[in-house]
Amino acid sequence: MWNNNKVTKSLGITYPIIQAGMAGGTTTPELIAAVSNAGGLGTLGAGYMRAEDMREVIKKIKKLTDQPFGVNLFIPEVSEISKDKIKKANELLRPYREELHVVEPEVKEVSTANFDKQVEVIIQEAIAVCSFTFGVPSKNIVQRLQKENIIVMGTATTVREAIINEECGVDMVVMQGSEAGGHRGTFSGSFSDSMIGTMSLVPQAADHVHIPVIAAGGIMDGRGVLAALTLGAQAVQMGTAFVTAVESGAKTQHIDAILESTEDQTVITSVFSGKPARGIQNDFIREIKPYEEDLPDYPIMNTLTTGIRSEAAKQNRPEWIHLWSGQSPRLSTRQHAAALLSDIVLQVENIISNR
Amino acid sequence: MWNNNKVTKSLGITYPIIQAGMAGGTTTPELIAAVSNAGGLGTLGAGYMRAEDMREVIKKIKKLTDQPFGVNLFIPEVSEISKDKIKKANELLRPYREELHVVEPEVKEVSTANFDKQVEVIIQEAIAVCSFTFGVPSKNIVQRLQKENIIVMGTATTVREAIINEECGVDMVVMQGSEAGGHRGTFSGSFSDSMIGTMSLVPQAADHVHIPVIAAGGIMDGRGVLAALTLGAQAVQMGTAFVTAVESGAKTQHIDAILESTEDQTVITSVFSGKPARGIQNDFIREIKPYEEDLPDYPIMNTLTTGIRSEAAKQNRPEWIHLWSGQSPRLSTRQHAAALLSDIVLQVENIISNR
Repeated sequence: MWNNNKVTKSLGITYPIIQAGMAGGTTTPELIAAVSNAGGLGTLGAGYMRAEDMREVIKKIKKLTDQPFGVNLFIPEVSEISKDKIKKANELLRPYREELHVVEPEVKEVSTANFDKQVEVIIQEAIAVCSFTFGVPSKNIVQRLQKENIIVMGTATTVREAIINEECGVDMVVMQGSEAGGHRGTFSGSFSDSMIGTMSLVPQAADHVHIPVIAAGGIMDGRGVLAALTLGAQAVQMGTAFVTAVESGAKTQHIDAILESTEDQTVITSVFSGKPARGIQNDFIREIKPYEEDLPDYPIMNTLTTGIRSEAAKQNRPEWIHLWSGQSPRLSTRQHAAALLSDIVLQVENIISNR
Repeated sequence: MWNNNKVTKSLGITYPIIQAGMAGGTTTPELIAAVSNAGGLGTLGAGYMRAEDMREVIKKIKKLTDQPFGVNLFIPEVSEISKDKIKKANELLRPYREELHVVEPEVKEVSTANFDKQVEVIIQEAIAVCSFTFGVPSKNIVQRLQKENIIVMGTATTVREAIINEECGVDMVVMQGSEAGGHRGTFSGSFSDSMIGTMSLVPQAADHVHIPVIAAGGIMDGRGVLAALTLGAQAVQMGTAFVTAVESGAKTQHIDAILESTEDQTVITSVFSGKPARGIQNDFIREIKPYEEDLPDYPIMNTLTTGIRSEAAKQNRPEWIHLWSGQSPRLSTRQHAAALLSDIVLQVENIISNR
């Protein structure tokens, strides 16, 4: 079962289970190391990190594991700075800032300099896997990484995006189904046309690219892992399942919200960052969603709400935090990452032997 | 693999594969009989049929197969007749009617009398399986059917709806994932909150009801069937895969549209019937969708557009027809239903033996 797998072979891992590189503090060195030490692939969600900070975290991870792990980067997006939109958003956000005593942040020009430095750090630190989301890396970057024997992994939400990834030369591609929590990886075509369920997305992608396909979206246990492999995926990527792990750095309120939610309580919204993402419904979404079309684009809106969200967490106001979650919160558990992995492996083996 | 299954045992079929009871002419006696004769369960989509016509079709099916088959009924919905909304819809629809030479239909009070007669016919004709969508049957109806050894099957789009079905006493429940084509079966809560991907919906439902769960949404081939069984379903229901079968009664334009579509070309819309349904994007949807919130409810809107759609098919105007499809059209094939079933069985057995 576990031996005949292109992804595990090329990544040098035991089980075809990848912990998603969730940005924003969830992926602690402890979580990443626990997943990699248990035979999966831990991934640092470095999307929002400055290159120098990322290097420090990588050093910490290396102290905790000698197994391969990955780093996930955001392809930078340069969006137009509309002063009118920023002004309007700041008006909408003023009541939250006043209540929490948060100051209005300055919006700076987005620069790609940090992204270039992140790539350099990944090469210098000889990271096993570099994954990308929100777009495709240039062929030049892909080739530089591959020359250093770094596996390059892309993210796609449609078959067309999978093909674009393949054409860029990535080694494998994560197919993110509509069930997935957090930000949509859509980078080509409209977000609404790219909400394809995992059951549909995986086999259609597997039929149209030659590189291995990694399934993501709604997968939480051994049933989901084996189902995804059955659909034609060579591995799975799981996010929400690891947010509630003991080693996760997610806010307590976020973890509790997932553990207590049902499948019909998540929504897709761009109110937190300017980019559509799936999270658990709360007051902030309900109150800002009516103005969603008028908000500044990602990453400007993200900058405008970051202070509110981190202060809301400190002041225990989960109703104003982004509570990213996929559509399977009823399957979430609070346990060590290694226990989650061994439960999955056992469940897969049980399903197969009971057939 | 195929022997240890609650659904096949209680339905008396060989393979846990149910052809969805798609209303509107797709499920011809030939299609239903072909599926049942090949070891699956064919189903007559009788939602829009008068009871007397349904009886005639049942008699035809019985001449073509001695195997069990099902009949699917719509739980009747009595919606308020808003003269303003009907007037507005008729204004929107006038250009299509003029172009096609279709007259404005009369909107009548919805009566539940035909539904009661349909149930009587099912009992009189001793149909093996009676399935329901758009709501749950009364406990009284469930018990009457079960007393006659008719298996009762419900439809749900959330875990809560699955539990409501179980409480009504149905024998098994179809879990319709967001990938599914055609009308959403949602009957409790909002349609948008009930768009749960099959990968998420099936295991969460299987964990929360004791009756067998049947997976629907995005399943087209052996990979999908085995994945669904792995997720905890006891059987699958497939719609789109049978629309393109040689025995299907679907319009040629509908079949061609599915065969030529990609996974990102379907949308959820209520413009055709007043109830959200998944179909392939076309001009009618693009033109009427902006007014979607103001349209009359189902089934009134359905009555208003029926003439336009059937005449559009006759005049070969696919841009004005409802082209129901799930999110896996790239997996569709044009072949006999028996060939589709045997391909699926072979593919499932191959996947298992190659593990």
